[in-house]
Amino acid sequence: MHPRIIPGVVNNQTIKSMSAQNTAREAAQVMVDSHISAIVITDDNGNLEGIVTERDMVHRVLVTNIHADELKLGDIMTANPLTVSPDDSAMDALELMRERKFRHLPVAENGKVVGMVSIRDLYDAAKAELEENVRETEAFVFGDRYGA
Amino acid sequence: MHPRIIPGVVNNQTIKSMSAQNTAREAAQVMVDSHISAIVITDDNGNLEGIVTERDMVHRVLVTNIHADELKLGDIMTANPLTVSPDDSAMDALELMRERKFRHLPVAENGKVVGMVSIRDLYDAAKAELEENVRETEAFVFGDRYGA
Repeated sequence: MHPRIIPGVVNNQTIKSMSAQNTAREAAQVMVDSHISAIVITDDNGNLEGIVTERDMVHRVLVTNIHADELKLGDIMTANPLTVSPDDSAMDALELMRERKFRHLPVAENGKVVGMVSIRDLYDAAKAELEENVRETEAFVFGDRYGA
Repeated sequence: MHPRIIPGVVNNQTIKSMSAQNTAREAAQVMVDSHISAIVITDDNGNLEGIVTERDMVHRVLVTNIHADELKLGDIMTANPLTVSPDDSAMDALELMRERKFRHLPVAENGKVVGMVSIRDLYDAAKAELEENVRETEAFVFGDRYGA
């Protein structure tokens, strides 16, 4: 079992995307209302432009003296973020997150955002895969021994 | 190998603790300067009173109209947070985080904070443990077969 990002890890997600012209405060409200910790920024055609996370809200909004109503997402987003493809494996995506210290990655296909994965989503999938490896190996061991 | 929180997952950490009287903005600055995403709040005797995370900064500071200089950590912290003990296993702590949807847990001993673990720290330890299980089982299989 080698789960792919879609449908193994996430499927039929409703993605919260906002415009670079929206404010940091509006994004904070969407994060709270939708129980999410990252928002993708897309242009009018739905193409991915950037990502804004809870961390960005601390590092690029709260520590400044600028009010969250005055900061546009275009000013605080990480532009052109790294993405994963729906076909990528959960394990590979998790390794990428560990290396780069990301907690979220947009899932993109032909420039359009089709999902968002968190390190928690991926951990669940990766753990299931590792446990399956253990079970398969153990089944081989005990299958072997019981038949011996 | 069943790693314990200390020393298996974290060891000799410098814990950033602040007072309930510090402001949200001061905490945001510590988070940025120290590259951490959660801060423990302790009383004058070093006893754990609460925890403040990046998420709290979005949910309890940014969405309000109150300036981050005006909000005390005592007003936005999660009081009496769940903790893990230094002797707890990494796997158990990880399961607790998954169930409760926490990303950070203070490590406490006799009421004093002795560490902080993140879901990433625990994932690294848990993954190492699962991989070790696979290796041990495989070694048993191949050890068995090579000797047969």
